[in-house]
Amino acid sequence: MAHIQVPEDVPGIRSLVMFRPETGKPLYDLAQVLLRGESPLTQAERELIAAYVSNRNETMFCMMSHAAASRHLYGNDKNIVDDVLKDLQHSQVSDKLKALLNIAGKVQILGKEVTEEDIADARKQGANDREIHDTVLIAAAFSMYNRYVDGLASFTPTDEKEYEAMGKRMAENGYVLPNNQK
Amino acid sequence: MAHIQVPEDVPGIRSLVMFRPETGKPLYDLAQVLLRGESPLTQAERELIAAYVSNRNETMFCMMSHAAASRHLYGNDKNIVDDVLKDLQHSQVSDKLKALLNIAGKVQILGKEVTEEDIADARKQGANDREIHDTVLIAAAFSMYNRYVDGLASFTPTDEKEYEAMGKRMAENGYVLPNNQK
Repeated sequence: MAHIQVPEDVPGIRSLVMFRPETGKPLYDLAQVLLRGESPLTQAERELIAAYVSNRNETMFCMMSHAAASRHLYGNDKNIVDDVLKDLQHSQVSDKLKALLNIAGKVQILGKEVTEEDIADARKQGANDREIHDTVLIAAAFSMYNRYVDGLASFTPTDEKEYEAMGKRMAENGYVLPNNQK
Repeated sequence: MAHIQVPEDVPGIRSLVMFRPETGKPLYDLAQVLLRGESPLTQAERELIAAYVSNRNETMFCMMSHAAASRHLYGNDKNIVDDVLKDLQHSQVSDKLKALLNIAGKVQILGKEVTEEDIADARKQGANDREIHDTVLIAAAFSMYNRYVDGLASFTPTDEKEYEAMGKRMAENGYVLPNNQK
């Protein structure tokens, strides 16, 4: 049961933005521009950063749904997602994405954890300002979404099939505010 | 020096939203509706929650500016802000605000840290669903803003006078996206 009275059986953040659509709008707008807007990072990579941070924050709902979205977007390379979530250092992603995910992991702990060396390493692997910016902001934003979802104990489905459908919807339709009338 | 190339001498988040106005817009819209929109919590109380979380995240820029905004909004009772930042439990705020700030402190650590008992305690002190919701989302949002500002090492002024002027402007004008032309 959620800590406040929200629509029952509506999972995760959707139930919270139905409770308070006024804050829901900028929360969804941010997800849309960050994860679907123009960026040198692919949508699959951005969803992977979101899933990676949510996994470190132990927020099952965000981790499962964004991992599913990332798998859908990676298509034939979808195994990358579980590889990274299991063991980043030995995963098959590029050294550039490894360096960016390392920065995302530092941001997940605290902003000040990101060092000049972390940034220099990412640049050495070819990362530019926009890629560094987007990585830090995605990691910071999921430090918010994760806390919002778990801090109010919103409903977390446990059926993997449900997340697969959710991830497909997120990948194909983006982040659209749910209708307030259930 | 910031980790990416942003307008020099523009402090904190302002320099980052000038670098990427597309994400800046929902970030400012969220701050505006959360801290200035309709809520059972006063604007002074909401700015205090923002300062309290930023202080725990050691993000000087957000802590100093939102503490200054809260002091400005509290007016004659402005000492409340420094009391809370120094020692919440012995501060002069109401038991309800203490219980809500306790929840904000849990969210700052991680969403799952908020327990049924924390929520029950806040309700016993008279907190309703909207107050609990707004507290959790403000604490979650500043877990993002703090990481964005520190994760990219944006410019942090050290002159207290500058924050006083900033806080007055934030209290009186709200959160208005800076013009991209400096």
